[in-house]
Amino acid sequence: MIVHVINGPNLNMLSKRDPTVYGTVGYGELVNEIQSWCEAERIKVNFFQSNHEGEIIDYMQKIPVKDGIVINPGAFAHYSYALRDALEIFKGLKVEVHISNIFRREEFRSHSVTAPVCDGVISGLGVHGYILAIQFITSKVFDKGKEP
Amino acid sequence: MIVHVINGPNLNMLSKRDPTVYGTVGYGELVNEIQSWCEAERIKVNFFQSNHEGEIIDYMQKIPVKDGIVINPGAFAHYSYALRDALEIFKGLKVEVHISNIFRREEFRSHSVTAPVCDGVISGLGVHGYILAIQFITSKVFDKGKEP
Amino acid sequence: MIVHVINGPNLNMLSKRDPTVYGTVGYGELVNEIQSWCEAERIKVNFFQSNHEGEIIDYMQKIPVKDGIVINPGAFAHYSYALRDALEIFKGLKVEVHISNIFRREEFRSHSVTAPVCDGVISGLGVHGYILAIQFITSKVFDKGKEP
Amino acid sequence: MIVHVINGPNLNMLSKRDPTVYGTVGYGELVNEIQSWCEAERIKVNFFQSNHEGEIIDYMQKIPVKDGIVINPGAFAHYSYALRDALEIFKGLKVEVHISNIFRREEFRSHSVTAPVCDGVISGLGVHGYILAIQFITSKVFDKGKEP
Amino acid sequence: MIVHVINGPNLNMLSKRDPTVYGTVGYGELVNEIQSWCEAERIKVNFFQSNHEGEIIDYMQKIPVKDGIVINPGAFAHYSYALRDALEIFKGLKVEVHISNIFRREEFRSHSVTAPVCDGVISGLGVHGYILAIQFITSKVFDKGKEP
Amino acid sequence: MIVHVINGPNLNMLSKRDPTVYGTVGYGELVNEIQSWCEAERIKVNFFQSNHEGEIIDYMQKIPVKDGIVINPGAFAHYSYALRDALEIFKGLKVEVHISNIFRREEFRSHSVTAPVCDGVISGLGVHGYILAIQFITSKVFDKGKEP
Amino acid sequence: MIVHVINGPNLNMLSKRDPTVYGTVGYGELVNEIQSWCEAERIKVNFFQSNHEGEIIDYMQKIPVKDGIVINPGAFAHYSYALRDALEIFKGLKVEVHISNIFRREEFRSHSVTAPVCDGVISGLGVHGYILAIQFITSKVFDKGKEP
Amino acid sequence: MIVHVINGPNLNMLSKRDPTVYGTVGYGELVNEIQSWCEAERIKVNFFQSNHEGEIIDYMQKIPVKDGIVINPGAFAHYSYALRDALEIFKGLKVEVHISNIFRREEFRSHSVTAPVCDGVISGLGVHGYILAIQFITSKVFDKGKEP
Amino acid sequence: MIVHVINGPNLNMLSKRDPTVYGTVGYGELVNEIQSWCEAERIKVNFFQSNHEGEIIDYMQKIPVKDGIVINPGAFAHYSYALRDALEIFKGLKVEVHISNIFRREEFRSHSVTAPVCDGVISGLGVHGYILAIQFITSKVFDKGKEP
Amino acid sequence: MIVHVINGPNLNMLSKRDPTVYGTVGYGELVNEIQSWCEAERIKVNFFQSNHEGEIIDYMQKIPVKDGIVINPGAFAHYSYALRDALEIFKGLKVEVHISNIFRREEFRSHSVTAPVCDGVISGLGVHGYILAIQFITSKVFDKGKEP
Amino acid sequence: MIVHVINGPNLNMLSKRDPTVYGTVGYGELVNEIQSWCEAERIKVNFFQSNHEGEIIDYMQKIPVKDGIVINPGAFAHYSYALRDALEIFKGLKVEVHISNIFRREEFRSHSVTAPVCDGVISGLGVHGYILAIQFITSKVFDKGKEP
Amino acid sequence: MIVHVINGPNLNMLSKRDPTVYGTVGYGELVNEIQSWCEAERIKVNFFQSNHEGEIIDYMQKIPVKDGIVINPGAFAHYSYALRDALEIFKGLKVEVHISNIFRREEFRSHSVTAPVCDGVISGLGVHGYILAIQFITSKVFDKGKEP
Repeated sequence: MIVHVINGPNLNMLSKRDPTVYGTVGYGELVNEIQSWCEAERIKVNFFQSNHEGEIIDYMQKIPVKDGIVINPGAFAHYSYALRDALEIFKGLKVEVHISNIFRREEFRSHSVTAPVCDGVISGLGVHGYILAIQFITSKVFDKGKEP
Repeated sequence: MIVHVINGPNLNMLSKRDPTVYGTVGYGELVNEIQSWCEAERIKVNFFQSNHEGEIIDYMQKIPVKDGIVINPGAFAHYSYALRDALEIFKGLKVEVHISNIFRREEFRSHSVTAPVCDGVISGLGVHGYILAIQFITSKVFDKGKEP
Repeated sequence: MIVHVINGPNLNMLSKRDPTVYGTVGYGELVNEIQSWCEAERIKVNFFQSNHEGEIIDYMQKIPVKDGIVINPGAFAHYSYALRDALEIFKGLKVEVHISNIFRREEFRSHSVTAPVCDGVISGLGVHGYILAIQFITSKVFDKGKEP
Repeated sequence: MIVHVINGPNLNMLSKRDPTVYGTVGYGELVNEIQSWCEAERIKVNFFQSNHEGEIIDYMQKIPVKDGIVINPGAFAHYSYALRDALEIFKGLKVEVHISNIFRREEFRSHSVTAPVCDGVISGLGVHGYILAIQFITSKVFDKGKEP
Repeated sequence: MIVHVINGPNLNMLSKRDPTVYGTVGYGELVNEIQSWCEAERIKVNFFQSNHEGEIIDYMQKIPVKDGIVINPGAFAHYSYALRDALEIFKGLKVEVHISNIFRREEFRSHSVTAPVCDGVISGLGVHGYILAIQFITSKVFDKGKEP
Repeated sequence: MIVHVINGPNLNMLSKRDPTVYGTVGYGELVNEIQSWCEAERIKVNFFQSNHEGEIIDYMQKIPVKDGIVINPGAFAHYSYALRDALEIFKGLKVEVHISNIFRREEFRSHSVTAPVCDGVISGLGVHGYILAIQFITSKVFDKGKEP
Repeated sequence: MIVHVINGPNLNMLSKRDPTVYGTVGYGELVNEIQSWCEAERIKVNFFQSNHEGEIIDYMQKIPVKDGIVINPGAFAHYSYALRDALEIFKGLKVEVHISNIFRREEFRSHSVTAPVCDGVISGLGVHGYILAIQFITSKVFDKGKEP
Repeated sequence: MIVHVINGPNLNMLSKRDPTVYGTVGYGELVNEIQSWCEAERIKVNFFQSNHEGEIIDYMQKIPVKDGIVINPGAFAHYSYALRDALEIFKGLKVEVHISNIFRREEFRSHSVTAPVCDGVISGLGVHGYILAIQFITSKVFDKGKEP
Repeated sequence: MIVHVINGPNLNMLSKRDPTVYGTVGYGELVNEIQSWCEAERIKVNFFQSNHEGEIIDYMQKIPVKDGIVINPGAFAHYSYALRDALEIFKGLKVEVHISNIFRREEFRSHSVTAPVCDGVISGLGVHGYILAIQFITSKVFDKGKEP
Repeated sequence: MIVHVINGPNLNMLSKRDPTVYGTVGYGELVNEIQSWCEAERIKVNFFQSNHEGEIIDYMQKIPVKDGIVINPGAFAHYSYALRDALEIFKGLKVEVHISNIFRREEFRSHSVTAPVCDGVISGLGVHGYILAIQFITSKVFDKGKEP
Repeated sequence: MIVHVINGPNLNMLSKRDPTVYGTVGYGELVNEIQSWCEAERIKVNFFQSNHEGEIIDYMQKIPVKDGIVINPGAFAHYSYALRDALEIFKGLKVEVHISNIFRREEFRSHSVTAPVCDGVISGLGVHGYILAIQFITSKVFDKGKEP
Repeated sequence: MIVHVINGPNLNMLSKRDPTVYGTVGYGELVNEIQSWCEAERIKVNFFQSNHEGEIIDYMQKIPVKDGIVINPGAFAHYSYALRDALEIFKGLKVEVHISNIFRREEFRSHSVTAPVCDGVISGLGVHGYILAIQFITSKVFDKGKEP
């Protein structure tokens, strides 16, 4: 069982974005922090980042249902119904993560078209959000399966 | 330092709600699970539930800034600007939690007026959501202070 | 089996409101008329009025499912999603009543957030509306159970 | 004095509609139940059903003001401003009835253009709704005239 | 060449409507006044009134292009796209008339779906409006053909 | 008694506008045609045109209530609430005229903020519209006073 | 088994409408072309056209469920919820057809209230659309029953 | 005659709010300043603050009509139709006050549901606003009764 | 230091407007009352009224920052972004005043485009509103400078 | 002459989607069925599927005008204005196909930004839709060229 | 051939506006810079600034079609349909210029009612915008006439 | 220092688009004209065109801040928030260019999601627009740095 950490467009530029919104951690560090934590927890994790909607969909279509998905769709969250469909097709555990609190920024960011087809959403908890999502998926907390 | 777990209206009726949306855990069990986890992690936690908007505001106004708030505003999330103001006045760490994924239910539930003044939002991760929020606040993950 | 007649905010001031909209009957008379009718029909009825959203929710959470609810939410009908949730949790028979015809007044009054979770709505039939609702619930008309 | 029970389009097909929404009573039975009840109460009642907006308006224009109208406009409730005008012109007692609770179905059904010109609305009480409306109009309950 | 004066639903009830909006003239008098004026002006005029959308469309489909239409669609103006299509198909001169000023009444009356396919609109000039429309069509004023 | 024919911005450029919309008559000819017709009918008429909202309001404030106003507000119809107020203050007869049919052009032209405070509106009847409006005001048709 | 080809208001005037939108085929020819094709394919077909909403509903209520419906509701598509209900009640195969592409015309035409209760929609394929719809219904293509 | 100065939710936390919006005066000082001014002017004043919508309504229902109300509803201004009804029932002089200019803040703050049922609104004049409102009510300025 | 009392379009016609909305005081009296009060308080005051948006802007551009502005923009409040910009450029104290309560009249009056760039707004307090605004600006109440 | 059958994102996952919406046919079978039918009809057909908006546009830009396009844009139908432009540039015959009836699913699916620039739309007829679209394009039915 | 550089309301106050939005150049300097550049390029240029909508329209109506217009409508861009009409009537080359980027400021500034009737728009390029617009009009770049 | 001229989807098909909107210049000529002009001005310029949103983002992420961007996002302007984010991350000078005037075309084209994060926008000036944007960026006009 693998957790796939998928990052959408411009998240590879994390350190170039507004630090009051995104913090100062770069994409490499983000990967490293999550990787370290997962190794400590003996969780297999795969990273994928792309600025191409199609590549993310291609990637997601190949993930087996026993795996889990932690996805930060970046700006795709606000309009990519194609990504939404790909997420809906995937029947395993899936959590949407946003580094910043999308509800306190520009109006268009407060609406996610992908959120309704994920199991849940974590927004505004910075890099922590990814790790908390992995915790949820790997049932580290209660050792339970998927519940509502 | 104490984490205040505040639950809004009707969350004391958890076990009476639609189990496909809310699971089968009752409010008492929810408190117990969180309590147990916090004890194991040596985190001080306080529980407060009320169906009265005013009581929640009264309670929140007395919390010192060094504490943290994990709040599930229930339906107040969708219209209580008074609660929003109370949350905005509190300058400590605060995370909004919803047991169900509010983005896949009735239209009115997908809009939270309190979310923009919290640090972050966790929605749809069931009872886990509370514990993940406490983790974030108590910095169990990275031992860091509040970051964007 | 008891029918609970619940009145929301400002309905205790009935005789002070615009008589062309609300008629001239005061809250006391309203209670008396319903009480008399119920006694004649040997129906047990309980009255509850409050200007506090939380008190109404508290009250409703204790009603057993075999009882019935006749509720005039007053202005709460237009925004109290917390009351809506409390109504939704109650699985017995429940009818929303408005003394005035809410569809011919200010725009905001024509939308009720509680109506969708009740069995039905009676609006504009004055004090009669309460009694007709009780009739429905007590199945005086056809001696049938709840039907769509 | 006669109560006119007017049913709009497709209500003659009642037994063919979704039983979880409309129950299992057909139009014939509906007429019979109301007829029986009215006979027992010595109320004169007239039934009229049509799928033609114009026929309903023609019919309504001939009703004398001393009579009463119980109308289930069916889908006309959602767009027929012509029917609304005909109802507005009629100055006697008039109550709009819907078998199902129109506020918990498709969005378009929650808005009635005819409701604002009726005295009141009963929605979601099934066949009972008609009889309760007749009760209101014939003042069986309090033996009073029209009040707000 | 004939001018067809078409009146939509409820205009046959003119004298029963609110006199502060519609004046005190009844439908019969309206016809008479227009008839008299037309006779004096030696204009052939035909009257048609119906509460049936379909009958008005049937009638209009038979009018030859050399004739003119003065139509008061009544409430059909606000939703009957079928009537709009029938008007659009007729290529002769056509003027929409409303007795009352539809822009100072209920919101829904200020929008006419038929107005865009007529040559022009006269609203609020009472019975005069019909005669002014006939004047326009019969070119009594300047003896000119149709101009923009 | 004088009829004031007031033309708003750009109507002095009539002959420069799209002839398929406005016809080929220039402002001078428009004035002449109306003048001639009024002379024949022995009606006193005054013309005023301005591109300045303030000048039109100044002019209108001086008109005595016994006079009448025929106003083509041009584009002011779509936003000048100041002009609307000036029209509302004038208690005499007043008719809004548009040369083109404003309901079949750009969306913004189909809404007039001045129409609700006039007695009536004539739109799309070209230069005729002015004369028909004067007829209405001077009661040439039925020799009656202002009626609804 | 019969396919009922139902045409709504103004489709009997097909040859009078804008040829760049509707082509040059008249209603008679349309019927003939479909008739010929059906005869060749040994499909029983019935034609019905009316400008009356009520007549179409009356007609549809009598169609047995084993038959199929090809309906061009004309302008009724944009507002007739009564027709929608009649279509919803019919449980057999039903396809909505529009001769023109309703998505490239006036805004109001791009929304069909009847489409959601049909099995499918064909728009913009001219007279072909009817025949393709019949093909679908009669399963000439794959000889299969109704599939999603 | 007493002026009731009612403050809604979170106004007891005034000194904790954004000083660029609310200034630096705390609730206690606010009360003191108004009290001092009133004493100097020999005006009887009563203070009431609550975070509970129901308590404010309870309080207001007991105020006699000869008294006056100066109310800062805080966030209740944006959604509490129950408070609006309570204000509408009170027939004495009543002025809504906001310390900050609610029209230059978040979009939701620019809409007050209580303002339409007050005599007037003062917004953005800080603590002065309360005193100016009291002046208005006590007719210090012109010694006149209530005028439009 | 001078307070400039600026009145927009139609306020010179005050006594001609609906007395139930505007009271019976005319513009001349309004000026006199304010003048008298200011003389008593030894405040220098300048009056300016115009129906011309441009003249008001011209006037305002010449006011030195040490002066104050009390402006009743009349109907310009609802659309004149040019006036808004002129107000925004002026950096001194400025208060918007409306004689009537703009929140209880036509929908369009409840939105002011100029209010967000003023320090505050007084609405519905009649002629008093001007004097209270002058009080605020001249710091008669607390002898303080501009505060939030 | 070739017909290009283009399928957008996630249509390669057809068999993984909700069978009550999409049926049970997989993408491979869909291609085979169409291929077989086309071979029988001696129609040259080319298949292209991609999850990449850019690849579909690249592909479409190379299609000669004498060919035809049958496109199921999948979720791109709801937002890809780039695809719309590519379709608009192609001047040959083009039909948009949706397997499911997009008008009876989520609100966002009922709006297609690509439909207005296609000749027509077929929605809800399952796999048949593709073949019917090919029929239309290849003029198998009437052997005619493109008509409205 | 002359280029008319027209500036709307408050642009004469350029140096008084927010320098982070408008820069530090005043209106006089703006005129000088453009004048100098035009002299160097031997372009005849005329400057006109007014806070009066009517004056700008008057001025524009006299410009011969061979001239060109560079217009910064200031706030008139957001509501002056009268100015739009005046621009539409002018058939020569015309470019709308905004000093600031109107798309990144208040919502109301992102919509220009005059832009659709100009040849093009330049926004956000500061004083350069005017000169670039003059370049376009005088065809300095490619020495071509007006092209789409 | 290099200016990057980036063209989005379908701009490589320029000569195939509607010449009344886009002119007759093809993409190759467009590149050549800009290239020639830049060579004459000794400006280094790079061209990039793609129909792939992801490729444009990839390309833009590599541009150093000292360079400048002239981007015609084509249809991506109307929905690609991913492109918007990429533009926002780039801190150098950037101008959005549209060949046609996007404000006089289909409604959806008048809204650009990328415009708010560019320095400015040039729309409707055809191929000139690109060169004027390069002029702005290279400070040929005034030899100044970036100003508001």
